[in-house]
Amino acid sequence: MLIVKKFGGTSVADAQRIKNAANKIIKSYKEGNQVVVVLSAQGDTTDELIEKADEINPEASKREMDMLLSTGEQQSVALMAMAIHSLGYPAVSLNAYQAKIYSSSNYTNARIKNINTERIHTELEKKNIVIVTGFQGVNKYGDVTTLGRGGSDTSAVALAAKLNADLCEIYTDVDGVYTADPRIVKGAKKLDEISYDEMLELATLGAKVLHNRSVELAKKYNVNLVVRSSLTDAEGTVVKEESNVEKMFVSGVAVDKDVSRISVIGLSDQPGIAFKIFSLLSKNKISVDIILQSIGRDNKKDISFTVAKCDLNEALRILEQNKQKIGCESISHNDNVAKVSVVGAGMATNSGVAALLFEALYNADININMISTSEIKISVLVNEKEADIAANAIHDKFMFESDAFGD
Amino acid sequence: MLIVKKFGGTSVADAQRIKNAANKIIKSYKEGNQVVVVLSAQGDTTDELIEKADEINPEASKREMDMLLSTGEQQSVALMAMAIHSLGYPAVSLNAYQAKIYSSSNYTNARIKNINTERIHTELEKKNIVIVTGFQGVNKYGDVTTLGRGGSDTSAVALAAKLNADLCEIYTDVDGVYTADPRIVKGAKKLDEISYDEMLELATLGAKVLHNRSVELAKKYNVNLVVRSSLTDAEGTVVKEESNVEKMFVSGVAVDKDVSRISVIGLSDQPGIAFKIFSLLSKNKISVDIILQSIGRDNKKDISFTVAKCDLNEALRILEQNKQKIGCESISHNDNVAKVSVVGAGMATNSGVAALLFEALYNADININMISTSEIKISVLVNEKEADIAANAIHDKFMFESDAFGD
Repeated sequence: MLIVKKFGGTSVADAQRIKNAANKIIKSYKEGNQVVVVLSAQGDTTDELIEKADEINPEASKREMDMLLSTGEQQSVALMAMAIHSLGYPAVSLNAYQAKIYSSSNYTNARIKNINTERIHTELEKKNIVIVTGFQGVNKYGDVTTLGRGGSDTSAVALAAKLNADLCEIYTDVDGVYTADPRIVKGAKKLDEISYDEMLELATLGAKVLHNRSVELAKKYNVNLVVRSSLTDAEGTVVKEESNVEKMFVSGVAVDKDVSRISVIGLSDQPGIAFKIFSLLSKNKISVDIILQSIGRDNKKDISFTVAKCDLNEALRILEQNKQKIGCESISHNDNVAKVSVVGAGMATNSGVAALLFEALYNADININMISTSEIKISVLVNEKEADIAANAIHDKFMFESDAFGD
Repeated sequence: MLIVKKFGGTSVADAQRIKNAANKIIKSYKEGNQVVVVLSAQGDTTDELIEKADEINPEASKREMDMLLSTGEQQSVALMAMAIHSLGYPAVSLNAYQAKIYSSSNYTNARIKNINTERIHTELEKKNIVIVTGFQGVNKYGDVTTLGRGGSDTSAVALAAKLNADLCEIYTDVDGVYTADPRIVKGAKKLDEISYDEMLELATLGAKVLHNRSVELAKKYNVNLVVRSSLTDAEGTVVKEESNVEKMFVSGVAVDKDVSRISVIGLSDQPGIAFKIFSLLSKNKISVDIILQSIGRDNKKDISFTVAKCDLNEALRILEQNKQKIGCESISHNDNVAKVSVVGAGMATNSGVAALLFEALYNADININMISTSEIKISVLVNEKEADIAANAIHDKFMFESDAFGD
């Protein structure tokens, strides 16, 4: 089998953890597999580098930021190769230039466009364990890019897709995908399987186990994905095309605290207003999540939406600059909010989910700010400090009042 | 003018020093020059990375070591570009892949073979200050190499040569080339000029201002080289084809403590013995410096030579392994030695230099271990703890007894 194994920053944080991961890698190699390893930067390396940059230039150019940050993964792969060598097995490290991972030019948030796997195949044929830098690519100018949050997961899945790997294992500090974050919700249960779509909703909603882009890619290329622990030998969760959706209609509860709400108030009730606002934000590469538009009264309406906390200031700046053009009375915001969501492929055919959700929040005396629904999820915006209580209330509700979580 | 400026590790050790260097760079850019900057890794970065590697694998492969260490310079160049941006000037950082610095494959000690300067020229035409990683190259396999000790100087001179630069400035923590190390010899004087050949001898002899490979390269391509301080605006020392050699016959005194002596004792007095020994060492890439062979007696002779301290153990291991083949009685060594040398183009035509040197050491009651002479230098091996006294004694002798140091 050809297996791609990805280890995150905490799994390679120090010499001992690198050796632990090396042992897992070697175990798989000794079983006769071809092994490609994708690594993130060590533990706090990225934060330390960001701090260094901030001290010199708090508004560092994105290109230079990528040049700086990409060194973290290069250190990881070199150290991992050394660890594998010290245990007596052959390994070679490759950075994005060497692994020929080509990306778009969008610094700090590039997309993988293509991978020329020739070098990797050559190294595998030489019986090497191949260790590749996650999170980074090379753009058409020959410059280093990084892939943004969760980029190493995306690197692993893209490599698995391009190499036609039999399996892509994502090692992390949890042992699989849970029905809710076990650190927040006591009764959270590990799932044996989950569908790409459900995982996608959970990832998008801040479950933080897998980045959404990596799941999208896995779905697109039908990559056999497993999320498992770097610390134990537990089985993990398989992410695949169809999970046993018949048995459960809710697969998980997710909390996302990286959310701010912006409201644009007193817009004239004319066509094209929403287009103006969101094209401005999109041009500045600000992603908008939940969007709500109030019903117009007195020819005036309000539009509210959420953005990631890190984008709040820039979004506000852009809107304030274009206040005239947009034609609104005022702009307000709130960054003490969080999004709580339930996800499940079974929802589409079960209208009771929303009712159960609202009942749970009502019983817990939690006020709902905004509501957004899709085929397989319902999200509500609540006060940030009530988010964990909300998640527990919802999880309990579905666990006890229904056999929502399958088995 | 097109100017290449090289800053060493101490000159970019922290945010403040990076900003200081950035100001020097911008000053030159504002005067209308095209500026290419070559940087080393920040202060202790390289040592920290070596420590990390040692913890994982004390015998790390050289390829992986280069992969690891080359990240240090990449961090420096990104941070410097950010610093220049923050001061309002355009800059772009390039690593060895981007600057297309091609090297031999010899990891940890590669040689620059060629530079394709296209990208650098493009960036200069865009009015960018171009910041290039020193110390590293890319070999024919597309892998990262490092250039060994003093490699960043070599990078700077090679770039200056290939770019036909008008000037190559090496910024360092001293303000020029001295007649001796000012930290060791009180009366040391700064030289305004020195010839490539003299600088070469001084560099080889451990004066540590410039690495010998960089001076060789400067001589070969007639690069206009200046050594100057990164802290002050002092003039520095010009290194060029012909210095005012007529005026001085000794240009400096150098101390090299990175020396060990090995003696191969009781060799049969036959042709080919020296060849056997030194081809063995050369095959293992161990450089030998001073070589002395005793006059044979009873058909037996001894050969002594010096190697860098870091090569001592491997040299001894190789010799012990091949003892039979070499046919010697025993092998001894001493790593408490140091080499003290006087250098000067004027020596060739002045036979009194050796006499003055030996007189100085005799007066200081210092025993001489080995002696080696060339056209423009005399080196003696003394006990390591007497090296500084020897250097002072020699320096004083030449300063006072003759007008050796020119002006």
